[in-house]
Order: sequence, then C-alpha cells, then structure tokens
Amino acid sequence: MSEPKRNRPEIGMLLFPGLNFLDLIGPHTVLAHSANVHLIWKNFDLLTVDLGIAVKPTTSMENCPKDLDVLFVGGGPGLTDAMQDRAFLDFLADRGGRAKYVTSVCSGSMLLGAAGLLRGYKATSHWAFRDLLPLFGAVPVHQRVVIDRNRITGGGVTAGIDFGFTLLSILFGENLAKAIQLANEYDPHPPFDAGTPEKAGPQITQAVLAQMGPRLEKVRELARKMNIQ
Amino acid sequence: MSEPKRNRPEIGMLLFPGLNFLDLIGPHTVLAHSANVHLIWKNFDLLTVDLGIAVKPTTSMENCPKDLDVLFVGGGPGLTDAMQDRAFLDFLADRGGRAKYVTSVCSGSMLLGAAGLLRGYKATSHWAFRDLLPLFGAVPVHQRVVIDRNRITGGGVTAGIDFGFTLLSILFGENLAKAIQLANEYDPHPPFDAGTPEKAGPQITQAVLAQMGPRLEKVRELARKMNIQ
Repeated sequence: MSEPKRNRPEIGMLLFPGLNFLDLIGPHTVLAHSANVHLIWKNFDLLTVDLGIAVKPTTSMENCPKDLDVLFVGGGPGLTDAMQDRAFLDFLADRGGRAKYVTSVCSGSMLLGAAGLLRGYKATSHWAFRDLLPLFGAVPVHQRVVIDRNRITGGGVTAGIDFGFTLLSILFGENLAKAIQLANEYDPHPPFDAGTPEKAGPQITQAVLAQMGPRLEKVRELARKMNIQ
Repeated sequence: MSEPKRNRPEIGMLLFPGLNFLDLIGPHTVLAHSANVHLIWKNFDLLTVDLGIAVKPTTSMENCPKDLDVLFVGGGPGLTDAMQDRAFLDFLADRGGRAKYVTSVCSGSMLLGAAGLLRGYKATSHWAFRDLLPLFGAVPVHQRVVIDRNRITGGGVTAGIDFGFTLLSILFGENLAKAIQLANEYDPHPPFDAGTPEKAGPQITQAVLAQMGPRLEKVRELARKMNIQ
C-alpha cells in the first residue's frame, strides 16, 4: 500500500541522524495508507536515527517533490546538529514556504522555528521545549496539537499519533480517521498517569529535565544567535 | 544510548518483511534507553517492513544472544508469510523456550501461537485476531495488555506503547516507567473515540474487517493445518 499513487497527497517527512523515530513512525503509520509519504534525507545512504535504528531514505532533498501537501519534521537528540545544518534548514524553508501544511511533532517545532517558519504563529512542542518557541517568534500554546492557519504542531513524541489522526481528518474527513483509529486499535490505556510535568510531579520532572538540560541550553544558545524572532 | 552495555536486560525484537513498524517502534522507544535491544532477522540485509520502510537488522538469528531477557514479536501484513516460515518459527520457539519474558503486540501473538508458545496461556491480540487465539491453544482475554506468568501480550498496534510501559515497570519499577512516560509526553488525547469496535460502531468496524478479512482467513487456515491447540 506504499507505492506512489496518483491523486494522493504528497507528504514529505524529514529524516536526520538522531531523529526520535517514534516522532515520525506514529504519524507515518496513521497517514501512509492514504498518502504518498517520502522519507527525505540529503542522499539515499543508510541513516542512523535515535536508539541505533538504521533506515534508508526513500528520496533525496534534490528528488523530493517541490510542492508538498504536507511537510513534516520530528525532533530528538539530533535536533541541535540539524539546527546547525544550513542545507537542512534551507530545505525546510523552501518546501515549507510552498507546502499546503507545515507540521511538526515534539522538538521538531524548534527546526521549523529555526527555518523561520513559525514567526507569528501559535505552536507547541515537547513540554520541555515549549517555552523556547518565542525565541523563534512563535507563540507557545499548552495543547497536545495546535493548529494555526496551515501550521499544525504536536507535543512530545507520542503526541505524534494524536497529531496524525488530526491531520488525517483534515485531509480525508472524520470517517477515514475513525476507521484508521480502529485499525490501529488506538484506545490508549497508559498503565501510569505521568505524561505531563503536572501529573508526574516535581521529582520525576526534575530528573527528566536534568537529562534534557544540555540539549535545551544548546537550543537556546543557537536560537539567540539566529536572531529570528 | 544504544550501544550494548553490561548488566542491562537483553531484549530481542524480531523483524520480518511486512511487519507493522509501529508495533515495534512503540515498545522500542520506551525500552531502548534502559536495555540492549536487538533487531533480529536472518541476516544483516536491509529489510522492508510495512508501508515501505527499509531498515537494517542489528543482529542475525545466528548471532543473537541465546538467553534473552525478553523475546518480542509484532504483527502486520507480513504475518501470514512469517507463519509459513519454519526457520522463523523455530527461532521463536528456541529463544522463547529460554527467555525470561515471551511477549508480543498486535497480531504478533499469532506468531507466538504458531511457534507453540501460547499453549495454555491467557493472551490478547489485535481485536480482529483475538478470537483466533484458541486455534493455538491460548485463552483470549479482552484487555489492552495481558500478563500470564511470563507471557505478556498487547492489543493492536498502538497498544505496544501501553505494553512497553507495563514491561518497563516490571523490569525496572514504576519510577523509571513514569520518568520515561514523561520524557515521551505519553498523555494521549485521541481526537476521536473510535479505537475499539464497540466505540467505532458496526459500520466502521465492518469496513475495517472487510480490509482485514483475507488475512484473518489465511491465519485461520494456517492455524488449522498446524493443529497446535
């Protein structure tokens, strides 16, 4: 069901080293039955995303369709390297300037921001990164999925699934979204209730922030140098 | 964080052509920060899972650790081919006979069943496949994650995330599970409420079953020939 077909939306999803793969695979699984999804990198070489998974791009930046229906980017540990990669940001800015929808999940909104695509837009991000959005001229909104005109941004990692179903319903209507939800048995029952800082409490939140601290600091430093807002 | 480290649990996750990749990437993302996770196939060649994603195994069946802490298998469109692959089932039976935990998500429980690993165990599967479990001598339970002794099985696709956190808490305790839940912002807000046949209603359920019908019929036919129960 993944061969390119005519008359289906063209969705471009960026790969990069250190991408959190669930950021991408969540919405990919939701959308790829109904759209032509391209996994984009600079070339066709095998690429190692986060946690040691090696994956092959399906298209290169050069070969990727110029006018995408949806441009998508996730986040992850590779974020700060990608933010310093001019060709990567230029590609985002180019395709994002023409795409019908410009979208992200998790800290991927930092990359949209670094490419200048969130100036003046409401957006969200992984909870730990959300407050950095104003550095890119964006207005942070505390919501799982935020839609502002043609920008659609999702919260951290697993929010990509909620983002995927939101986008699927925008592209194809509620009935298809519900059928794909059922096919993927998306009736979540988290065994614990610790998915936000408010629910997890200060001790666990501090432990997670300590892990993410250096990455947050680096994004802040890079964003200030870019002087985008 | 994915280099093999000493004193971490060894988790073996099976790859196969046509695997639903979210079945695997959900629990992989949850577990791989704390365990050595192996992506196993017969060889090291690039392999195409469902929806056109090409991924590289990290180990071969021959090189995979003999005594795994966790054996895991997902499902997907490639299920019926894998069920007819004797070497694949023999590998499952061998590692499953020695693993501390024998686990699956989605229709992966059909593969555990076909390898003879669910005889006399309570288990679950993707909702459309759950009623086929008795063909493998298993007792179907209508639950998102089912634990019976050292067998842990999850429901369809997205249930892999709930399965992952359940397993993480068994291996490492609730505190780590909650920290990883927060890191992945697992606070799901599905935009629609159609994740089970009961919630989606008969019309959408029939549409999804019509898509899955041939695969269900093939599993039934293969299971009967195997005569496992």
